[in-house]
Amino acid sequence: MKRLTSTQADFHAEFRRLLTERDSDTARVDGPVTEILAAVRTRGDAALCEFTNRFDRTSVTPATLRITPAEVEAACAHVPPALLEALEVAATRIESFHRAQMPADMKYVDGAGVTLGMRWTALDSVGLYVPGGKAAYPSSVLMNAIPAHVAGVGRIAMCVPTPDGVLNPLVLAAARRAGVTEIYRVGGAQAVGAMAYGTATIAPVDRVVGPGNAYVAEAKRQVFGTVGIDSIAGPSEVVVLADGNNDPRAIALDLLAQAEHDPMAQSILITPDAGMAAKVEQAVATELETLPRAAIARASWDAHGAIITVRDLDEAADLVNEIAPEHLELMIDNPQPVFDRVRHAGAIFVGRYCPEAIGDYVGGPNHVLPTSRTARFSSGLSVFDFIKRTTFIEAQAESLREIGPAAVSLAQAEGLDAHALSVAVRLAKLEGAQ
Amino acid sequence: MKRLTSTQADFHAEFRRLLTERDSDTARVDGPVTEILAAVRTRGDAALCEFTNRFDRTSVTPATLRITPAEVEAACAHVPPALLEALEVAATRIESFHRAQMPADMKYVDGAGVTLGMRWTALDSVGLYVPGGKAAYPSSVLMNAIPAHVAGVGRIAMCVPTPDGVLNPLVLAAARRAGVTEIYRVGGAQAVGAMAYGTATIAPVDRVVGPGNAYVAEAKRQVFGTVGIDSIAGPSEVVVLADGNNDPRAIALDLLAQAEHDPMAQSILITPDAGMAAKVEQAVATELETLPRAAIARASWDAHGAIITVRDLDEAADLVNEIAPEHLELMIDNPQPVFDRVRHAGAIFVGRYCPEAIGDYVGGPNHVLPTSRTARFSSGLSVFDFIKRTTFIEAQAESLREIGPAAVSLAQAEGLDAHALSVAVRLAKLEGAQ
Repeated sequence: MKRLTSTQADFHAEFRRLLTERDSDTARVDGPVTEILAAVRTRGDAALCEFTNRFDRTSVTPATLRITPAEVEAACAHVPPALLEALEVAATRIESFHRAQMPADMKYVDGAGVTLGMRWTALDSVGLYVPGGKAAYPSSVLMNAIPAHVAGVGRIAMCVPTPDGVLNPLVLAAARRAGVTEIYRVGGAQAVGAMAYGTATIAPVDRVVGPGNAYVAEAKRQVFGTVGIDSIAGPSEVVVLADGNNDPRAIALDLLAQAEHDPMAQSILITPDAGMAAKVEQAVATELETLPRAAIARASWDAHGAIITVRDLDEAADLVNEIAPEHLELMIDNPQPVFDRVRHAGAIFVGRYCPEAIGDYVGGPNHVLPTSRTARFSSGLSVFDFIKRTTFIEAQAESLREIGPAAVSLAQAEGLDAHALSVAVRLAKLEGAQ
Repeated sequence: MKRLTSTQADFHAEFRRLLTERDSDTARVDGPVTEILAAVRTRGDAALCEFTNRFDRTSVTPATLRITPAEVEAACAHVPPALLEALEVAATRIESFHRAQMPADMKYVDGAGVTLGMRWTALDSVGLYVPGGKAAYPSSVLMNAIPAHVAGVGRIAMCVPTPDGVLNPLVLAAARRAGVTEIYRVGGAQAVGAMAYGTATIAPVDRVVGPGNAYVAEAKRQVFGTVGIDSIAGPSEVVVLADGNNDPRAIALDLLAQAEHDPMAQSILITPDAGMAAKVEQAVATELETLPRAAIARASWDAHGAIITVRDLDEAADLVNEIAPEHLELMIDNPQPVFDRVRHAGAIFVGRYCPEAIGDYVGGPNHVLPTSRTARFSSGLSVFDFIKRTTFIEAQAESLREIGPAAVSLAQAEGLDAHALSVAVRLAKLEGAQ
């Protein structure tokens, strides 16, 4: 963990190092992925089943690729009712927020009499990738599937690997709650290939979303263009901006909640209160003694964690903008000025009673957010990932008379004569009709 | 050119072939591009100038990389006033449409007393790539720069190669009109690298947009993640849906306006009127006798053009949805039912006096649109490319009491104890306070 003070001489250099130290080329897996995708593309279900059985130690056939409704029901029966209720709270709140997020169409007639507008329509079909094993998070199923459903996507197919044939009941319960009924027991690059190119059993989709390991990420990269993809998540981060008026243990746990995800995660405390900095550092050490995932959290905190003491909250907000963190907590009195000054963050959590974990599960906004400083130019998952815009122009004769000549001039200047003529012949016809 | 009739026995197979025949792997240039990017990243301006001077036959130095305001003014003085006026018409209309497109922020308090919302903010900086030579389209400068400006991007840097040192006056006039003042005389993968990584002369940007050749496209692919990029354009297409009540010459010119862009472009006429099909085919042949870019247009029309005769307009709309064309013209009486039935198209042009070329220049909506069937899952360039969303949640004690327990349950079920504890310690504090 790094301790920085904004008044130290080398502060800016050290701060920049903090921002870039996690940048590294990930392992190259493009060769094997290219082979897997080509095999699935040409040999379809046969290749899909071969890879699945080899990597997941299963014995699936095209006939058993799909997880049946009966299997889903049987699995869900193993989920304790209290957990189903918690899923319901989360799903309802995620649904409400994403409904509120849906944009409206736009249409107007301008001064030249031209009707202009844009219309949003849903994608026909989406493929949702869900990791298997320990990284299988039912909350992520809700966060990916519900926005697609709210957006009006007609078909949502889901692929989830079942290593050794084991189904994850809570993942299936989340899928059921999110209205996903088409589920396949496949994972890895082969699942991405099946969704992108289609096989006899799995019809192709228009876009593939969802997190995955390096093979899945590379497969998404390679099928991009044939289908749309969501962003490829890097290691994630939290910035907690805290004043002196906090429970150090609560702040420490917020930092560790990020750190326990992944040794590459980054947790940064920014505070104008040197006393709070010291107390949180101590509280982190204390919590690490008992935390079940202490090994992961400690690796992250030791290598990438930081406590930055600043002059004031304005300076803190400016540092936040340089970091452009995935998550930002504002655990301060009167948060509005800092909230207004922050321009780059995936999601902001305001108030001492609003830890980031609330947003991971039950807040309502999406927990799939831009990582590794990409909040400078990108946004979290949303209904916008499952809809697209069609713009339109409607013009009658009089409008063409007004705006057409400029189009003719520009087309001629660009040397595109058919463009110019397509307007000019219509203008000539109007002159003839007069 | 293919003639298809929807009633022929092998129609669907032939139609599918039409949609996929242009899919092909483009030339692999990833090796050279990787080297160029690495050189620019490590050696900055020196490498940038070396590549520029070698590829563009120029002699730029770091001191002369930037095109000065005096050079811009001198170049603009060569643009005929009528063309500057046409640029002004286009720019004003593009600006108006993109202003209307800006989304509003959202904020509400829900039944649990939680404040939820999302806020849009502009990117800090954008790099605009403009191709040099013959493919330098001033209209594209307007279409890329104006939405960035409207979105509120603080800094717009533009790179345009100047082969043999020659400046393109109309491109510079378009940049001036769009408010772009930071312009560099560099192109290719080296320009993309300079904008993504920064050099001593060119500060890095957050997102790179704009069309380019295979090297530029590959460079954008490789810098993606470090910066954002726009979509990578493939060969483009138009579908003209025309009834019997049209001037065949106007329809033919609309088809040729697409074909004259590129031998890989695709122009498709769909009509329920066999007589109109024949007349348009004849009119295309006639126009090709005199069209200046006939060689390109003929290559496109011969290889990829098609005339499809359909039973009725409903069938036509369904075929349009399968094509998901970049551009769709509705040259029919009563276009509303078809307009409503079409779900996948980049932009729609409605009315016999609204050829697609209007949209290329002066319509107002963007002419950078999803090509090669990607309108199934993506949208044209817009202000949305230059802004991003931050979601936020604000919760006080009472709200946490209501929604917190579900978060604790789900976090425990996912094995993320620090997540669960970060909520639980706050809930415990509330209980203690009671």
